[in-house]
Amino acid sequence: MAVIAVWKCDRDGSMFDDKKDAEAHDKMLELAANITYVIEKNIQSVSEEDCEAIGLLLAKHSDVLAKACKGKPELLLEEVNATENKETNNTDNNVTPMTQTG
Amino acid sequence: MAVIAVWKCDRDGSMFDDKKDAEAHDKMLELAANITYVIEKNIQSVSEEDCEAIGLLLAKHSDVLAKACKGKPELLLEEVNATENKETNNTDNNVTPMTQTG
Repeated sequence: MAVIAVWKCDRDGSMFDDKKDAEAHDKMLELAANITYVIEKNIQSVSEEDCEAIGLLLAKHSDVLAKACKGKPELLLEEVNATENKETNNTDNNVTPMTQTG
Repeated sequence: MAVIAVWKCDRDGSMFDDKKDAEAHDKMLELAANITYVIEKNIQSVSEEDCEAIGLLLAKHSDVLAKACKGKPELLLEEVNATENKETNNTDNNVTPMTQTG
């Protein structure tokens, strides 16, 4: 039997067949952790759990967030509304939407 | 007496002598409001006040945040530590640091 490489992201243990995907995922988690750190350092009234949820939420939208930071803040609204439409379409097809737990 | 134009940002009423500064400030506040909106829409357990504080915090660091989103997440940590060093230096000179209220 052949032996094949599988790539594991040590931040959360998730596994990938493709090294690039694993690296992209690791970079996303690093960004999430650093956004969480910035919030925790500056705004003490937000719980650790919420800081982590916010870091992950924003890191998952990093492409749009980067463009928004570079002069197109309206793109963030489009992103949220697009995600909502996807979810409402899903519920129309009686599929439980992927809810972002706080 | 001469009459000169002064530029007011209607989001928060702040005034600027220079139109470009006023527009940059308005864009920053729009980014802050949109980040706040994304968080409020996705994470209900964070207070409105905290969502606004986080939006403003991240919008004020939009340059570094954009770079962090584009593959350099470590820059966010440098930014926070740099801000902290500035504040500790200030306290050494008996100056009250600008604390980010939650």
